[in-house]
Amino acid sequence: MITITTKQEMQQLAKQHKTDGNSIGFVPTMGYLHVGHLKLVKEAKKNNDIIIMSIFVNPLQFGPGEDYKAYPRDPERDKQLAEEAGVDILFMPSPGNMYQNEKSIRMTVLRRTDTLCGVNRPGHFDGVVTVLSKLFNIIMPDRAYFGLKDAQQFAVVSGLVEDLDFPLELIPVETVREASGLAVSSRNVYLNEKERIQASALYKSLQKAKELINSGIQDIEAIICEVKDYMKANMEGDIDYVELLSFPELEQITVLKGKVIIAVAVKFSKARLIDNIIIDI
Amino acid sequence: MITITTKQEMQQLAKQHKTDGNSIGFVPTMGYLHVGHLKLVKEAKKNNDIIIMSIFVNPLQFGPGEDYKAYPRDPERDKQLAEEAGVDILFMPSPGNMYQNEKSIRMTVLRRTDTLCGVNRPGHFDGVVTVLSKLFNIIMPDRAYFGLKDAQQFAVVSGLVEDLDFPLELIPVETVREASGLAVSSRNVYLNEKERIQASALYKSLQKAKELINSGIQDIEAIICEVKDYMKANMEGDIDYVELLSFPELEQITVLKGKVIIAVAVKFSKARLIDNIIIDI
Repeated sequence: MITITTKQEMQQLAKQHKTDGNSIGFVPTMGYLHVGHLKLVKEAKKNNDIIIMSIFVNPLQFGPGEDYKAYPRDPERDKQLAEEAGVDILFMPSPGNMYQNEKSIRMTVLRRTDTLCGVNRPGHFDGVVTVLSKLFNIIMPDRAYFGLKDAQQFAVVSGLVEDLDFPLELIPVETVREASGLAVSSRNVYLNEKERIQASALYKSLQKAKELINSGIQDIEAIICEVKDYMKANMEGDIDYVELLSFPELEQITVLKGKVIIAVAVKFSKARLIDNIIIDI
Repeated sequence: MITITTKQEMQQLAKQHKTDGNSIGFVPTMGYLHVGHLKLVKEAKKNNDIIIMSIFVNPLQFGPGEDYKAYPRDPERDKQLAEEAGVDILFMPSPGNMYQNEKSIRMTVLRRTDTLCGVNRPGHFDGVVTVLSKLFNIIMPDRAYFGLKDAQQFAVVSGLVEDLDFPLELIPVETVREASGLAVSSRNVYLNEKERIQASALYKSLQKAKELINSGIQDIEAIICEVKDYMKANMEGDIDYVELLSFPELEQITVLKGKVIIAVAVKFSKARLIDNIIIDI
């Protein structure tokens, strides 16, 4: 595995691989790798000659009160895990290298952001699409792999790729879960022991919703209430939202049909966790 | 020469050329080709295996009162000229194909637009960078060729390529002029006979400025006044602006040094003409 720290070197090497006819699979991350990220690498290895992983905690997608500085980092452990997983090129630029010049272009996301986490994170997805546009141009992937745990991010990035015609395919990858059902996340380290046990209620409540839908329940409000009630009865975290929307449009629906997402967010003492399931009805 | 009318086919073909190791030179145009465009093709042919020209009158870069519908078009003549010049692939998409989905991403240019033509064309350069981002992703050029007649466009596009790290080189190409000095432009067809003769005063006034600078004159205001006086004495058009700025930053300067641009815009009865010279002092 090669580690590269500047976008100039990275772009030159990616160009060489394209000229050599190698396909590139790209796994963008903010580091502090866990099995969720490693699953993305595993999926990427199935269809690409060269696997490039980026590790970049992107300042642009953190709001003023958010955890940019406190975001967990462990570059040495990350390097080891990436190498073991079969990453060929690890791209770890500094913020100073990625954002070298005064900003010339502002990118604003117009759709799929006025719901779920987007409501309380103004500008977050603008930062996400900006850094991904740069990374797509630097790494020139044939395929880019995104976990579905942040399903809204996947929906927004789909919009970006379609709207600006990026020459790549987005591959969604199923959320990896612990035995309890808890979705694996870098932010799980913020949970205390009791919260970690209770946090499995997020997924269990989503399973509850799935059962209700499968049993023929059509009342969206009733399904959302059941999910909320289940979580309230089984954990002490504060429910931020429970939503049932079309996917990937993330629009309110009145009839259950097609692809839908049930998404939840819960605030524990030091961590805000999200989870979702996508159901094709 | 192949003519392609959908972005999907164009992107697939460009991908094939990249996989085959062919370098791509790209000449973006709005059609109604003239010797200025053909010079771009000639330059592109020096350094690239495949020459792709796009012809697309981009609705997004025209303001409400501007000449989108009236913009001169002659696709059959364009095809012939492009083929004769040695274009390999002519890309002529429809607006419906280029802007297929409801917009997800808004791109806003933050620098180099609050001067020259940008002042009176709010949103114009936002439309330019949006369509170019799409075209760069569809055509995947190694090099893209832009005439310096629209020097502000070149400056803004340089900012786009730097800021979003597009994997391509921008090549500026000198303005092509008629024997009188008049810069060749698709909009010259709007000039009547008398105006066409007078319009050479734009370039002559710029030459005047160059002479003054070469003779050691340092007073920027005085140079601008001389340019204005020359134009007023030699034509009936209304002067929109005469500016002397740093290039490509397009910032006001107080001392003449480095690269500077002297840019003029004049309104005739049915045409608004622009011209400039860039001087490395």
